Amino acid sequence: MNIGFVLFPELTQLDMTGPFEVLTRIPGSKGLAIAKTMDPVGADIGLRFVPHHTFRDAPKIDILVVPGGFGTDEAMNDGETIDFVRRAAAEATYVTSVCTGALVLGAAGLLKGRKATTHWAYVDLLPLFGAIPTEGRVVRDGNVFTGGGVTAGIDFALTLLAEVAGEDVAKAIQLSIEYDPKPPFDAGHPSRASGRALELVQKRFEKRLPVAREACERAWARFGGQA
Amino acid sequence: MNIGFVLFPELTQLDMTGPFEVLTRIPGSKGLAIAKTMDPVGADIGLRFVPHHTFRDAPKIDILVVPGGFGTDEAMNDGETIDFVRRAAAEATYVTSVCTGALVLGAAGLLKGRKATTHWAYVDLLPLFGAIPTEGRVVRDGNVFTGGGVTAGIDFALTLLAEVAGEDVAKAIQLSIEYDPKPPFDAGHPSRASGRALELVQKRFEKRLPVAREACERAWARFGGQA
Repeated sequence: MNIGFVLFPELTQLDMTGPFEVLTRIPGSKGLAIAKTMDPVGADIGLRFVPHHTFRDAPKIDILVVPGGFGTDEAMNDGETIDFVRRAAAEATYVTSVCTGALVLGAAGLLKGRKATTHWAYVDLLPLFGAIPTEGRVVRDGNVFTGGGVTAGIDFALTLLAEVAGEDVAKAIQLSIEYDPKPPFDAGHPSRASGRALELVQKRFEKRLPVAREACERAWARFGGQA
Repeated sequence: MNIGFVLFPELTQLDMTGPFEVLTRIPGSKGLAIAKTMDPVGADIGLRFVPHHTFRDAPKIDILVVPGGFGTDEAMNDGETIDFVRRAAAEATYVTSVCTGALVLGAAGLLKGRKATTHWAYVDLLPLFGAIPTEGRVVRDGNVFTGGGVTAGIDFALTLLAEVAGEDVAKAIQLSIEYDPKPPFDAGHPSRASGRALELVQKRFEKRLPVAREACERAWARFGGQA
């Protein structure tokens, strides 16, 4: 079973590395980092990854995973990336995203009429692609699984894992990665974030969201009608 | 502030990428992947990382993070790796590990008489290095922070983040990575794992643990007396 992760510059690496750690522990599976070229791909925090395949030479993918990050602005407006996502999705058993990777699936026309989620700050952009924003850290609609922001990728991967390999294997992998989370604060969702922390994040997203919205609209105008 | 992550072949990448995502979001910080050479380093699941520095040319590190993985067997018996860990630790404000990275700190003589933790399956190896195994997903003893297995790296990083940058920044970063975990199963710790899943994991560790123990004893015999 090939589990293909789409890499692009300025991705949020934990969107990818969380599910990569979980899903590639499925016996018999292989995790593949797939990018436009074989050049190392830099994440938004500077960590660099060496791809296993390019979009052109990637084998058939069984589980397609699209991570998010600020780099989705470019990725969803890039013809080669969208072409690959569409081609891979057409053959895949599962089509999935973590965080704002959902916007790339959206631009590729893969969320039309589908229930989906994304990072909490970007949920309002989903309807631009005809998707139906849906509550939940992991949302499933048919063979399309979408996860919430960044760390939701681990919960998403365990949920998908249980479906693909059974609950016992999923629980064994959860135990082997000691996934027994104990966040030091109860601040991981805007509904429970405190004043100052929420302010800091909102300030950041005030500038970010109009840029992301414009990128989504541009991508939809270019690719949305063709899907 | 330089946050240095020690890379070695066959590391468990999520031990590193979890804290990398969290800690490098501290305003003004820089995450550095540091390895023996500039060649890409392959994780145990096949993902490959490009280092920023070698052990020889790394700048002064403020927070040193050593991840775990099966590759710790080799890393803790490698003179250059242990030398670097000792040199970097001597200058660092915080000396830290995730998962079996604690065994590398141990081999370098940095856990003598210290409370520490590691992946639940390896806790009994800590006394080989004079460390005091201590309950907790994140354990602190002075400037040494050790985290439990794999995903504990995220909780560890948020705990350290609050100390370094304050609670408001820590909560803001927790919110921005939507760290509001909802594991689909309550199976992440051996105390609550079910029969079949626990069996699957135990079977794996039955073969693994004697190998790890031998590697620890060998490393201690070589490096432990010199620290």
